[in-house]
Amino acid sequence: MPLVKEQIFVGVDGGGTKCRACLVSSAGDILGTGLGGPANPFHGEAQAQASILHAVERAIQNAGLDLAVEELIAGVGLAGVSLPSVYQSMSAWPHPFKKMYLTTDLHIACLGAHQANEGAVLVVGTGSCGYSYVNGKALVMGGHGFLCGDQGSGAWIGLAAVKAALLAVDGLGPRTCLGDLIGRQLGVQAGMIVDKLGAAKSSDFAALAAFVFQAAEMNDEVAIKILREGADYLSAIGESLWQAEPGRMSLIGGLSERIKPWLKSSVTQHLSDPISQPECGAVYFARQQNGLI
Amino acid sequence: MPLVKEQIFVGVDGGGTKCRACLVSSAGDILGTGLGGPANPFHGEAQAQASILHAVERAIQNAGLDLAVEELIAGVGLAGVSLPSVYQSMSAWPHPFKKMYLTTDLHIACLGAHQANEGAVLVVGTGSCGYSYVNGKALVMGGHGFLCGDQGSGAWIGLAAVKAALLAVDGLGPRTCLGDLIGRQLGVQAGMIVDKLGAAKSSDFAALAAFVFQAAEMNDEVAIKILREGADYLSAIGESLWQAEPGRMSLIGGLSERIKPWLKSSVTQHLSDPISQPECGAVYFARQQNGLI
Repeated sequence: MPLVKEQIFVGVDGGGTKCRACLVSSAGDILGTGLGGPANPFHGEAQAQASILHAVERAIQNAGLDLAVEELIAGVGLAGVSLPSVYQSMSAWPHPFKKMYLTTDLHIACLGAHQANEGAVLVVGTGSCGYSYVNGKALVMGGHGFLCGDQGSGAWIGLAAVKAALLAVDGLGPRTCLGDLIGRQLGVQAGMIVDKLGAAKSSDFAALAAFVFQAAEMNDEVAIKILREGADYLSAIGESLWQAEPGRMSLIGGLSERIKPWLKSSVTQHLSDPISQPECGAVYFARQQNGLI
Repeated sequence: MPLVKEQIFVGVDGGGTKCRACLVSSAGDILGTGLGGPANPFHGEAQAQASILHAVERAIQNAGLDLAVEELIAGVGLAGVSLPSVYQSMSAWPHPFKKMYLTTDLHIACLGAHQANEGAVLVVGTGSCGYSYVNGKALVMGGHGFLCGDQGSGAWIGLAAVKAALLAVDGLGPRTCLGDLIGRQLGVQAGMIVDKLGAAKSSDFAALAAFVFQAAEMNDEVAIKILREGADYLSAIGESLWQAEPGRMSLIGGLSERIKPWLKSSVTQHLSDPISQPECGAVYFARQQNGLI
């Protein structure tokens, strides 16, 4: 009787700035993890593919296993593949994996948070978005990116702070300490903030969100208004998600701990801690698609 | 006695999308005009310089004169040179003109509108900004660009419409016909607007502003709220500019006719029609710097 080698899975969570991979045994134990670069194929497919492979190879190294990428079954959740054209194009990638199952970053975040097929997640990091999967039906609310949406996200809060600071500098809006806080961070006077942000990306604005929380703690009315407006938007998404009866709902993303106290109790009372990370959700997805769950 | 050749002046108005040149006789008559490409040196100095020379050469051709660029005294007003580093760098350009006098696009717009040293302009086009020159002192209000400011501008109005349409699609904001109007323009359903605007520039958003005016005429409450918010900001700038007692104040820019009925009478009652174009203001500036005014 030939020796049957254990089937190892890899889960990949790919976003606009980085990509995480997680190697999991057939018993469900985490064997190793790895990090890669940007992996949103909407912003570059070749880069996304390279980042995914890099993260997976780092995870194999981290596990210390004598394992080839070709032996792995991969679950891959990526930002950007909610666009049908991007999904189709990435599906046609002649990847080196034994099998690859592709879905959105929101889907694996939800699977990871609940280790179950159904549930809801309210994602608040550099961007913001709501997602639920109930009765076999996915619902996406919000998102829409830094420029047109993502209200309540780190980037949105940071940009709102810059706008409010400039209004105050021009004498066209209420006084706020935000201009001084942000100006000090950027090494310029408040009126010159915008010159320092000429080539700023959403992540640069998200890095300014901390000053809005700081100003709000000092009772800065403008900062409090920004956080309340952003949080009310997120609460409205959370309420809508819960109406679909997802069973469980989690708040995830880099800003979740900071923004949570600002959300309405109608949302926070329904929040459960996420069980695992999105990359573990990607493994869950691969096992499910492979008929193992 | 040698023949003294008449000194011809050229005025140049350079912005982010195009550049206009105007050839003027020593008596002040317009001899010819020319158009060039983008000429904001903040976004590329070599391009700005090439666009300026192209526009000037077209103006010479248009005038039908046997004239070399080297014989001209140029007044040049450019977007971007309000930043000291950009001003210094453009000043160091080994330009081919006999002399070149450099200033901001706002300054020449104001000189052109009033054909006088002092006055104020409220500029509303793709972007928005207020500028006054009173008692030898320049005051700039607003501006700050598409992302962080430019409230009430075409790009701001278009972006606000997209945001409002997406909120309505998600059921998180009031109903509006803006999503249908913009979606029809872009050839997609309202919920897919943002996918069509992935690489959109401020001018692309400004192109959507017309639909907001159209929706407001149909009593769309969301459109009316957007225009009122933008116009109130512009009115606040106009009121501040007038407080400095500029003598004359003009509303200029591509959106001025559309936005004017939305401005407060406290501003509109003080508006005078602009006397000439910014490129004529650039000639005024050159003559003034050359000691001729």
